[in-house]
Amino acid sequence: MNLKKLVGYKAAEFIEDGMTVGLGTGSTAYYMVEALGKRVNEEGLNIVGVTTSIRTTAQATELNIPLKSIDDVDKIDVTIDGADEISNTYQGIKGGGAAHLFEKTVANLSDKNIWIVDESKLVEELGAFPLPVEVVHFGSGQLFKKFDQKGYKPSWRLDEEGEKLVTDSGNLIIDLHMGIIKEPESLATWLDSLTGVVEHGLFLNCVDTIIVGTQEGAVVEQVDRG
Amino acid sequence: MNLKKLVGYKAAEFIEDGMTVGLGTGSTAYYMVEALGKRVNEEGLNIVGVTTSIRTTAQATELNIPLKSIDDVDKIDVTIDGADEISNTYQGIKGGGAAHLFEKTVANLSDKNIWIVDESKLVEELGAFPLPVEVVHFGSGQLFKKFDQKGYKPSWRLDEEGEKLVTDSGNLIIDLHMGIIKEPESLATWLDSLTGVVEHGLFLNCVDTIIVGTQEGAVVEQVDRG
Repeated sequence: MNLKKLVGYKAAEFIEDGMTVGLGTGSTAYYMVEALGKRVNEEGLNIVGVTTSIRTTAQATELNIPLKSIDDVDKIDVTIDGADEISNTYQGIKGGGAAHLFEKTVANLSDKNIWIVDESKLVEELGAFPLPVEVVHFGSGQLFKKFDQKGYKPSWRLDEEGEKLVTDSGNLIIDLHMGIIKEPESLATWLDSLTGVVEHGLFLNCVDTIIVGTQEGAVVEQVDRG
Repeated sequence: MNLKKLVGYKAAEFIEDGMTVGLGTGSTAYYMVEALGKRVNEEGLNIVGVTTSIRTTAQATELNIPLKSIDDVDKIDVTIDGADEISNTYQGIKGGGAAHLFEKTVANLSDKNIWIVDESKLVEELGAFPLPVEVVHFGSGQLFKKFDQKGYKPSWRLDEEGEKLVTDSGNLIIDLHMGIIKEPESLATWLDSLTGVVEHGLFLNCVDTIIVGTQEGAVVEQVDRG
């Protein structure tokens, strides 16, 4: 069973007529966009999409999903996106697809956030998945050195040609291999404070619903952030 | 008397043989770079410069000041730069020249920071000078709206053609016209936390020495940062 397809299609069922929908990026979000495209074209579902990457824009355009730019909407009703890790307190790491800057902007503007994952993404504590940090070019070597000195085992994200990957905003990505992140909140605040850091992949107190793909089917879990 | 030239040349006297020197950006820093160029070419002063903008790189190259990239130095001994406002507790606003991202990176890496200003830049509290905030393009309209709702009177920084100015890192600048900034520390933390904000122009607990140009001459003031 393709668990990514399972949860992608399940998530698309949550979308109702008239909604403005944030469209995530990545191999799982891909199926959600595909499923929404079917509902638009076959059921006449009337939605507006807000995309989180050049890739998703291309896919949604191909499927004739009506799109608006992030700056042309007042708010977003629901955003559906993947996640690279979800802890047992529902904190997340995103950015494996290098789109976490746009994804976080869209998530922040959304009334509700739904994350779609296969069960392998559920962890006790965050940190086994490398934490992506998007940085400006200028001084990025100094930031790399700082992370290294802290013991965060940094590595440069590379593209298919083995060159440093350049994000949709023209920046670079340093991945931190921390193993376990004991205090995600204080790490996030520290990273936010660093000059040259544009955005990191910690998505804290963000998600409202997670849809987990298991061999027994899609499990929908509501998050109480009360 | 040209107060900018006065303090620019005065600051260049602080530089000693063998130093790695951060070279600021702007109309006052211009004279400091000019004076350093003279010392390099006429006295044989042996320094390495680290620049904070494409403009300063061009000027220093023209003057044959040896340069290294920010990522090729271990540290910087002294950085000399202008400032747009300095409060009576020595907090600063920079970024009138749109170079505050690179300037802050260089300042953070410097053992000592010297700011050179004419006396008009000294204020009781920060905020009469518009506070620059460098932002990524994606979602910048939403940030503008957020600042507006907070009453921070945002405006887009424009270039000479009246288009939105693009920084050396390819981003945009929103200027906040706050009047008085009562709590610069908490404002800085809030701005740091916003997705899409790359860097703001608050330089807090940064400066070690200020050189103020007055009609009576250059006044050197050491800052006790405890």
